[in-house]
Amino acid sequence: MSGTDHAHQDDWTGPQPVFVLVEPQMGENIGAAARAMWNFGLEHMRLVHPRDGWPNPKATAMASGASRVLDRLGVFDTTAEAVGDLNYVFATTARARDLTKPVVTPERAMEQARAMTRDGKRVGILFGPERAGLENVDIAQANAIISVPVNPGFASLNLAQCVLLTAYEWRRQTGDDVPEVVAMAKTQFATQLEMDKLYEHFLERLDTAGFFFPEAKAEGMKTTLRNMLSRMPMTQSDTQIFHGMLRQFARWKERGD
Amino acid sequence: MSGTDHAHQDDWTGPQPVFVLVEPQMGENIGAAARAMWNFGLEHMRLVHPRDGWPNPKATAMASGASRVLDRLGVFDTTAEAVGDLNYVFATTARARDLTKPVVTPERAMEQARAMTRDGKRVGILFGPERAGLENVDIAQANAIISVPVNPGFASLNLAQCVLLTAYEWRRQTGDDVPEVVAMAKTQFATQLEMDKLYEHFLERLDTAGFFFPEAKAEGMKTTLRNMLSRMPMTQSDTQIFHGMLRQFARWKERGD
Repeated sequence: MSGTDHAHQDDWTGPQPVFVLVEPQMGENIGAAARAMWNFGLEHMRLVHPRDGWPNPKATAMASGASRVLDRLGVFDTTAEAVGDLNYVFATTARARDLTKPVVTPERAMEQARAMTRDGKRVGILFGPERAGLENVDIAQANAIISVPVNPGFASLNLAQCVLLTAYEWRRQTGDDVPEVVAMAKTQFATQLEMDKLYEHFLERLDTAGFFFPEAKAEGMKTTLRNMLSRMPMTQSDTQIFHGMLRQFARWKERGD
Repeated sequence: MSGTDHAHQDDWTGPQPVFVLVEPQMGENIGAAARAMWNFGLEHMRLVHPRDGWPNPKATAMASGASRVLDRLGVFDTTAEAVGDLNYVFATTARARDLTKPVVTPERAMEQARAMTRDGKRVGILFGPERAGLENVDIAQANAIISVPVNPGFASLNLAQCVLLTAYEWRRQTGDDVPEVVAMAKTQFATQLEMDKLYEHFLERLDTAGFFFPEAKAEGMKTTLRNMLSRMPMTQSDTQIFHGMLRQFARWKERGD
């Protein structure tokens, strides 16, 4: 397990931060962290002195579809070596520390990371061992601290969850690359003219059916109806459904059975 | 396991969304979801037909410090009952669906949820069973879909992770609490139960009128109708207008003139 043997595998192919797991204990958690990263398209992982050595079959089994993250991962003996080629390093920690260092939210951190990678800087994020978290000696090497704004009375994020939130924030900051998911994008919304026609159809059928009663209130009822329809975000298809219903009530009436 | 027995425990004490787990399978995952929520101060959970019944010792063991979420949780037989008193419901899903419904990111969804709770609306978020996710019949009842913008080639968020990201986004949106002027602030929006009743009324009248024809298409037409109604931002007063129209068509028919 030597940094130099594996470091070459961790070439920097794109503008992405490197996630560095410091002394991870359970192989399963390394695999879960890889999955969390790959969910958001992040693939640069490094390990510092994993307790059970490397490779670790349990990590591989857990990573399954995200094995590419593990295949190209770098293993180092010390945190200093793992972050040696990086320009800026964040340390994640749940507890307040005595170290004088900027403390930022994941949101702010990934905003900064995004800006720095745009400038060609290499950014890394340190994640501590499952139980104890990062030691001060590791945090001291970082340029800033990421603190997730959890419930002060209950902070229980596990390693993969902490990785997940950070990876999610990275992806969120690159939102302009990923068009917002809108399934209704191709939807044909009704035009004002179509809504007018639907309103007229409602008027005609409801009037025939004697809905606008008493007459003194008829105008007010019609305005309320028009206003209500104008608040409904209808598609063209929705208006057709309503037209169909109105016609069907008339047919039913005419059938007279 | 009955909705009525537990519903009173789930009183609405603050402006927070309700997280509804639909047919969760493993008790451990219910506990992990509770932990994920409580990390971000969210405490309103409801269960729909949990596979192993309720209470569930495995859920309690896993929740540990977040047991308050489980202590006050409501259990319901159906999704419709679980969201009956809510005004707006999001459904989380990983896969694209054929239903015409807004699809938003967690960020946008929690931004909207935050705005709606400020207006006094009750907001819920549906999470599907671990393996299969939500079924279309549940999604049809929701007003919008939340889709996490994951790697298109690798989406592997588990239940607790999906809950975690949503709870995180809720907390992030509450960062700076700037009150907004909202013209519809005092409006009584329809609850899901009221929308269910309106849907049932539509069904009954349209069925009598012979709308659902041919029979082979009837189920699809009903789902389309339910889905359309769920997209309409109706007030209680709007639902009364539609009830009135439907009654009037029946009276008209009976009058037979």
